[in-house]
Amino acid sequence: MDDFSPHFGTKIPISYICGGINSSHKYFIMARTKEFDEQEVLTKAMTLFWKQGYAATSVQDLVSHLGINRASLYSTFGDKEKLFKKAFEHYHRSNFERVNQFFQNHPDPKEGFNKLFEMAVDESVNDQDMKGCFAVNTTTELVPGNKEMQMVLKGNRKQVENLFYDYLKKGQEAGHITTDKNLKSLAFLLFTFYNGLRVVCKTEPDREELMQSVYTELSLLD
Amino acid sequence: MDDFSPHFGTKIPISYICGGINSSHKYFIMARTKEFDEQEVLTKAMTLFWKQGYAATSVQDLVSHLGINRASLYSTFGDKEKLFKKAFEHYHRSNFERVNQFFQNHPDPKEGFNKLFEMAVDESVNDQDMKGCFAVNTTTELVPGNKEMQMVLKGNRKQVENLFYDYLKKGQEAGHITTDKNLKSLAFLLFTFYNGLRVVCKTEPDREELMQSVYTELSLLD
Repeated sequence: MDDFSPHFGTKIPISYICGGINSSHKYFIMARTKEFDEQEVLTKAMTLFWKQGYAATSVQDLVSHLGINRASLYSTFGDKEKLFKKAFEHYHRSNFERVNQFFQNHPDPKEGFNKLFEMAVDESVNDQDMKGCFAVNTTTELVPGNKEMQMVLKGNRKQVENLFYDYLKKGQEAGHITTDKNLKSLAFLLFTFYNGLRVVCKTEPDREELMQSVYTELSLLD
Repeated sequence: MDDFSPHFGTKIPISYICGGINSSHKYFIMARTKEFDEQEVLTKAMTLFWKQGYAATSVQDLVSHLGINRASLYSTFGDKEKLFKKAFEHYHRSNFERVNQFFQNHPDPKEGFNKLFEMAVDESVNDQDMKGCFAVNTTTELVPGNKEMQMVLKGNRKQVENLFYDYLKKGQEAGHITTDKNLKSLAFLLFTFYNGLRVVCKTEPDREELMQSVYTELSLLD
């Protein structure tokens, strides 16, 4: 299960922690004279919002990029805000099961987190668009004025924290982590560290410096 | 030196780590028929960009908020991008000396970082605008398409990392930190953690949860 692409496109790298998508779940929507795959269009919208941010992406940008006309866009997805929310939820769902599966294949949480964070670092330093993490970008851009997105982002955090906690707990039960550790706190801390890593990656730090910080952070599991 | 306001306004809280501003350094610019304090206008622009982000802030927003007309804005600061850069640099300079002074008054780095991060948490959870950190917001919003801001943000990171390193080094020399620690790596890690904290604070976590993560992170200095 380590065959996750480090590149961006329709496949979301595992390190962009979110949820699992059922890729067979495709809708074909009749919009005026054009038929299109809603999931494919959502993926394109997600990539554009991810790269440019919410405010900097105009409806015209979406029309030019998604390959559907303005009327189809509105009739299928609603306005820009509604499309953004759907695109984010698409992102949010897309990797949860993959990360879950990844964790199941790495019984030692220290080794698993090390690999997960290393993939995040590599994807970041290799991404010419420097998109960073869509969830982090959305949190910093949209939370102040958007209560609905704030709840979505809070839910995203809780879900990932719980995934991390369950993974640590299972690892502890298997003897990989000592019983004196506060796993709830560690799960929150690792999520916080991951968010920081995704920000700092955008300021061109040295890969070795980034990985050294991962090793030091994970020494908290010793 | 602990009398830093936890509120937002013309005074920037210490935890919004940046540089020191000389508040007596005021310019009075004659722009057409209006005289205004450039620093004061920059502070207003900074607060608006900080709250709304770059793309979501229009020139009309700036004109309405800064109390100067469009012609004065262009003649004094240039276009929106130039004004943003100046506003960010204003932010960047504003607290460096304060943080430096704060560190000098807290010889034990563990105690100092604990207090600094606690102030950041309190300011975040008490800020109704949920602005977060201007440097973090700018990193996630602007880096992909703006090489100049990328260099500014990289410089900001290096400057804060060096400040953290010097503080840790002085603390180590005074016996507060054992000599086996890799201080360069710890300085980078604490900066990364701080960035993550500023993101996560925007998703309404529990204050106790946040502080527990601070305590656990700082146990790396033991």
